[in-house]
Amino acid sequence: MKAVEGGICAAQGFTANGIHCGIRKNHSKKDLSLIFSAVPASAAAVYTTNLVKGAPLAVTKKHLENGVAQAVICNSGNANTCNANGREIAEAMSALAADQLGIDPADVVVASTGVIGQPMTIDPIAAGLPALAAGLSREGGEAAAEGIMTTDTVKKEAAVEFRLGGKTCRMGGIAKGSGMIHPNMATMLVFITTDAAISPAMLQKALSGDVAGTFNMVSIDGDTSTNDMVTVLANGMAGNPEITAEGPDFTAFMQALNSVTISLCRQIAGDGEGATKLLECRVTGAADLKTARTVAKSVICSSLLKAAMFGADANWGRVLCAIGYSGAAVDVNKVDVAFRSCRGTIAVCEKGAGVDFSEEEAKQILLQKEIEILVELNSGSESAAAWGCDLTYDYVRINGDYRT
Amino acid sequence: MKAVEGGICAAQGFTANGIHCGIRKNHSKKDLSLIFSAVPASAAAVYTTNLVKGAPLAVTKKHLENGVAQAVICNSGNANTCNANGREIAEAMSALAADQLGIDPADVVVASTGVIGQPMTIDPIAAGLPALAAGLSREGGEAAAEGIMTTDTVKKEAAVEFRLGGKTCRMGGIAKGSGMIHPNMATMLVFITTDAAISPAMLQKALSGDVAGTFNMVSIDGDTSTNDMVTVLANGMAGNPEITAEGPDFTAFMQALNSVTISLCRQIAGDGEGATKLLECRVTGAADLKTARTVAKSVICSSLLKAAMFGADANWGRVLCAIGYSGAAVDVNKVDVAFRSCRGTIAVCEKGAGVDFSEEEAKQILLQKEIEILVELNSGSESAAAWGCDLTYDYVRINGDYRT
Repeated sequence: MKAVEGGICAAQGFTANGIHCGIRKNHSKKDLSLIFSAVPASAAAVYTTNLVKGAPLAVTKKHLENGVAQAVICNSGNANTCNANGREIAEAMSALAADQLGIDPADVVVASTGVIGQPMTIDPIAAGLPALAAGLSREGGEAAAEGIMTTDTVKKEAAVEFRLGGKTCRMGGIAKGSGMIHPNMATMLVFITTDAAISPAMLQKALSGDVAGTFNMVSIDGDTSTNDMVTVLANGMAGNPEITAEGPDFTAFMQALNSVTISLCRQIAGDGEGATKLLECRVTGAADLKTARTVAKSVICSSLLKAAMFGADANWGRVLCAIGYSGAAVDVNKVDVAFRSCRGTIAVCEKGAGVDFSEEEAKQILLQKEIEILVELNSGSESAAAWGCDLTYDYVRINGDYRT
Repeated sequence: MKAVEGGICAAQGFTANGIHCGIRKNHSKKDLSLIFSAVPASAAAVYTTNLVKGAPLAVTKKHLENGVAQAVICNSGNANTCNANGREIAEAMSALAADQLGIDPADVVVASTGVIGQPMTIDPIAAGLPALAAGLSREGGEAAAEGIMTTDTVKKEAAVEFRLGGKTCRMGGIAKGSGMIHPNMATMLVFITTDAAISPAMLQKALSGDVAGTFNMVSIDGDTSTNDMVTVLANGMAGNPEITAEGPDFTAFMQALNSVTISLCRQIAGDGEGATKLLECRVTGAADLKTARTVAKSVICSSLLKAAMFGADANWGRVLCAIGYSGAAVDVNKVDVAFRSCRGTIAVCEKGAGVDFSEEEAKQILLQKEIEILVELNSGSESAAAWGCDLTYDYVRINGDYRT
């Protein structure tokens, strides 16, 4: 398996495009994206657990009942959530996209992201769709990645090449992250495509299994969005024997998927609203997987620790505090904590108590862009990682006047 | 019942004092407080649920096993948590205070607040205690309130006068809040005194019953501290017949307690780290109390909503979003949301969807110092309130370099 270029269009048979159609006032920001598969594809998805769900989710869920899809339409600038006509607009988005592509509306995945509860009309989407569809190309992945951004500062893409049944397969994805992100089932918007052949049921199994250790372990601000979903389309054009059960091919597929999703998780966390640093909490030595994940999430979600990391302050007491209130049954007197970055590793706590360390060395380590918080529980052999970012002035600025 | 002056010394028989002994580097900041009852008092407490617990909590817990105490010693500037000699220092604090006061060390409540995992010595406390004890007076409540402050910007005091069994009783309290505050059993440091006569068992019952709807409904940043506790001393000097069971006197006592605790909750929330506004979420029309409390807490904890309130932005979609991910079984299509302040009330959401409202009017309402977020679930008759504050640049500044 190796990383390749091409993002959402890396796999055979996929084209994409993104344009500004007028939902967002800023003309330099794209707000409508389309992804298309030359042939119908196996499709799987996971959705937000928020009881308040964007109208597009209900429509997508219905469309994916048969496990098949051929296109994704997604707008940014308006979440199409808590609008009286939300369902109607999501249905219209599917129908208009299907019409342009000459496919069944029920084979369209529809998504929206942006402000909740703002009035929305179909007009700019209807007006923009012909040009959007006409511009679909193998080179359009970048534009599509831009069209789903909200307060994201960089587009998020990943792709890998791998082998299945003697055939070369590719898988790529794009993601939209930034704010209102918290681990509680599928968070953020992620679209993944692959030319591997896999049955809808096994694709869903792969995706559901993957998100527990990837997207569900990312937290920016503890808020679980109303609109988030992760979808995968697998069109089979690589020509490998279709994966219909567990086995070496399914394992290889899972590894490729995990490689793409971990990359997108890190990109999403590192570009969290206002973030200056990517934080990764790696928990090892846990008695069980649930404990490892609970501890990692709790540490990565602590506002106090996030602010300390912004200030490059090795305030390890806040790590211990977050472990203590995580709800996991941890023997805090066995816990070791260290910080690591490209500048080195520094141990700050052993067996639950502070150790002498150089504040200057710790500062140099914590001033880097990617920080690992290493937690060794010394109670078993399970491990987990969680991703987040620091809490900064800019998070407050961005969210203090998001709508205006 | 009426509000009175005097704080922690409002009730008969209580004296207090606070001084700078040298734990904190800044000489203008008090860092050691003492509260003393002329006679032994019934005592009750609730403690943090964090598995990482400050050493003073273990000592206090042991001292309160018999339900009796006569003094409280508390330092700020160092949490005495995750220190190898923590227990020893907490024991020494009790012993030295008891020695000065001529009482049993087992009748001393000991508490610490400040940075976790910093080395600590008993020296400044031992050196300061004689002057601290010598200066105990009825006028010392304010100094005691100052001595327990960390990043608090104002001291927090409350007191009420009420009648029990034909006698005038008083109850007062002081609190330390600010950061690392989240509803999960007793949060923050709170000391309450009263001259009412009540058995230790009924005092504990009153306190445990009260915190569920008061201190456990306050959140500043979602972090549950390692050191927090709420204690009440009731010395009986008002001369009322001792409360030993439920009945009208117990109810009156609960009301007085609730009046003091609600006042302290509002003071703590309004002075949250970096806060410019006090936020109160009032949930009504819930099917049951648990739902009401869960929804109120979820709204008050949302970083996105807190940032929007800082920006005076009526972004009600974030209220609905927080209700949706709260975990409570709520019919989101029945939810009404309004914002209220001294400038008026504005409805922003009805039956789960946006209503037309004046952005200018909303702005004026949200620019005030105390904001109520009103959530009507239209599904029953239970209600709850939760308190918090806005998320500001200063929260980030304060916590980005707390130790330096």
